[in-house]
Amino acid sequence: MSRSWAVGVDIGGTNVVVGLVRADGGGAVALRSAPTASMGDAEGAVADIATMVDEVISEGLGKVDGRRRDVAGIGIGCPGPLDLEAGVVLEPFNLDWKDFPLRERLSAAVDLPAHLDNDANCATWGEYWQGVGRGVRSLVGVTLGTGIGGGVVLDGRLVHGASSTAGEVGHMTIDVEGRPCKCGNRGCLEAYASGPNIAARAREGVERGAVSTLSELAGGDPATITAATVYEAVVHGDAYAREVMEETARILGAGIANLVNILNPEMVVIVGGVTRAGAYLFDPLRAEVRQRAFPVAERACRIVPGELPDTAGVIGAAGLFLAGRQAG
Amino acid sequence: MSRSWAVGVDIGGTNVVVGLVRADGGGAVALRSAPTASMGDAEGAVADIATMVDEVISEGLGKVDGRRRDVAGIGIGCPGPLDLEAGVVLEPFNLDWKDFPLRERLSAAVDLPAHLDNDANCATWGEYWQGVGRGVRSLVGVTLGTGIGGGVVLDGRLVHGASSTAGEVGHMTIDVEGRPCKCGNRGCLEAYASGPNIAARAREGVERGAVSTLSELAGGDPATITAATVYEAVVHGDAYAREVMEETARILGAGIANLVNILNPEMVVIVGGVTRAGAYLFDPLRAEVRQRAFPVAERACRIVPGELPDTAGVIGAAGLFLAGRQAG
Repeated sequence: MSRSWAVGVDIGGTNVVVGLVRADGGGAVALRSAPTASMGDAEGAVADIATMVDEVISEGLGKVDGRRRDVAGIGIGCPGPLDLEAGVVLEPFNLDWKDFPLRERLSAAVDLPAHLDNDANCATWGEYWQGVGRGVRSLVGVTLGTGIGGGVVLDGRLVHGASSTAGEVGHMTIDVEGRPCKCGNRGCLEAYASGPNIAARAREGVERGAVSTLSELAGGDPATITAATVYEAVVHGDAYAREVMEETARILGAGIANLVNILNPEMVVIVGGVTRAGAYLFDPLRAEVRQRAFPVAERACRIVPGELPDTAGVIGAAGLFLAGRQAG
Repeated sequence: MSRSWAVGVDIGGTNVVVGLVRADGGGAVALRSAPTASMGDAEGAVADIATMVDEVISEGLGKVDGRRRDVAGIGIGCPGPLDLEAGVVLEPFNLDWKDFPLRERLSAAVDLPAHLDNDANCATWGEYWQGVGRGVRSLVGVTLGTGIGGGVVLDGRLVHGASSTAGEVGHMTIDVEGRPCKCGNRGCLEAYASGPNIAARAREGVERGAVSTLSELAGGDPATITAATVYEAVVHGDAYAREVMEETARILGAGIANLVNILNPEMVVIVGGVTRAGAYLFDPLRAEVRQRAFPVAERACRIVPGELPDTAGVIGAAGLFLAGRQAG
């Protein structure tokens, strides 16, 4: 069984995670994680990631059969925008990697062929291939975190679009005159339901005088309220925090209803820390979709949390490398 | 060249249009049109449409080579929701055809195999195959009329979705707390930008005292203002009507920016009478998309009116029959 593995690299704003993935499935092994900020500039990150890739192959295949030539290549997931054809990170995100030829550099550093794709596409593909989406033909992934991203799988193929930016579901307008978004638009889904914006909406309410334990939970300073604080307050029965969570769920529900009406997928997978809120999030979210989407489309669609919170990105990055040209 | 033609049937709320379409392109010939209301119930309509199909084949192929066996079959476009697998019109629209097995009945009546699809999918496919979308691989159609529908073509395939309702772009929420829509939701694109809703918004303004020639153009009675009246007033320099048109364009722009961000298509084709407004509609619409969509996606996408205002539905219905299983 030669070439039966691929390495997945999931580059996030906080951590880089690397792991070894079997071509025939079965999760990721030999996982390594390191803080992205510790890696310095893009060249420094390439050197550090290359070391992680070597370690992962040694550990993973040392235990299995020890042969590096069993590794077909490396899949890289990275926040966009990217030029996928050229394998280039186009615009600075929180790492200042502007116009950096990441695919070529990392491929050269580890002496393996590489594929670069958007991080949210990788997480979506990971859930489609080995997570909650196994056996489904069409699925939309929604990644909730510092930002909101997504990926679209139709008929078993990842939709990249005309310039490789398909799946930016976080920047769909759900309120034309709504909150300003960091993308420059107004009323984007992300402007309400990303982690920082859930926190911001909660803080704004507290500053307007909402009765809540949120300030207390945040150590007395409303400025330090995060999405996690909101979740914690909900679990402890804070009515105002619950209101914030339910508003978040309704807004996400409106966005997901749009995806259901436009694409009629079998499944919408929600990925990210916010899914820890469980029924507090999913019950009002599903109710909102039921109210807004076409019944025949809503009934055909399961809305579920991802099954691979820590490894969907790594597995999907490796999987998209392996899927190769199959991803259209 | 046997089986080199197909018949297209475009069933609308106002008219049924039938025509003969060559498998290798070249538009529709021998067109027939009849008022839908004149056909009575569903069985009556099947009988009348079957007669039109016979006439169209006789006229079209009488002129070409007169052989009915050159017709491969019949494509039918009909407003949804439909059960495409079963070929059934599911829910009553303005014709009361509830749970009617249209594909089977029409196929039997004309003794030809038939394919049934959504009317907006047919119009989109017509523009993709023989209209403004020739040569493009990915395209979203938006049909503006009494309602707003749409169709999604990705990588040369029409997206039907898990229960055949993909493409319902008119019922995407663009204002979570917005205008009620006839679908039961709030803030749908259709609730602002369908013909009747453009007229309703204009009427509401006039009733609130907006200075405008609209009432005069509508014969003194604001209740008779239509979308066509608004267009006429814009052309005659009415500032308030122009405001209504620009608001319509901005709202359509927000919806189309969503499609651009989610699907990153090469083209969005807008089909319907409203496109007669030309630059009055398209200039502010494109400006809004530019402001709202990701630049790399916006630059990759042309937003254009359809080229086949009278025949896209007929050509697309015939084309989807011919594309057969190719349409996924």
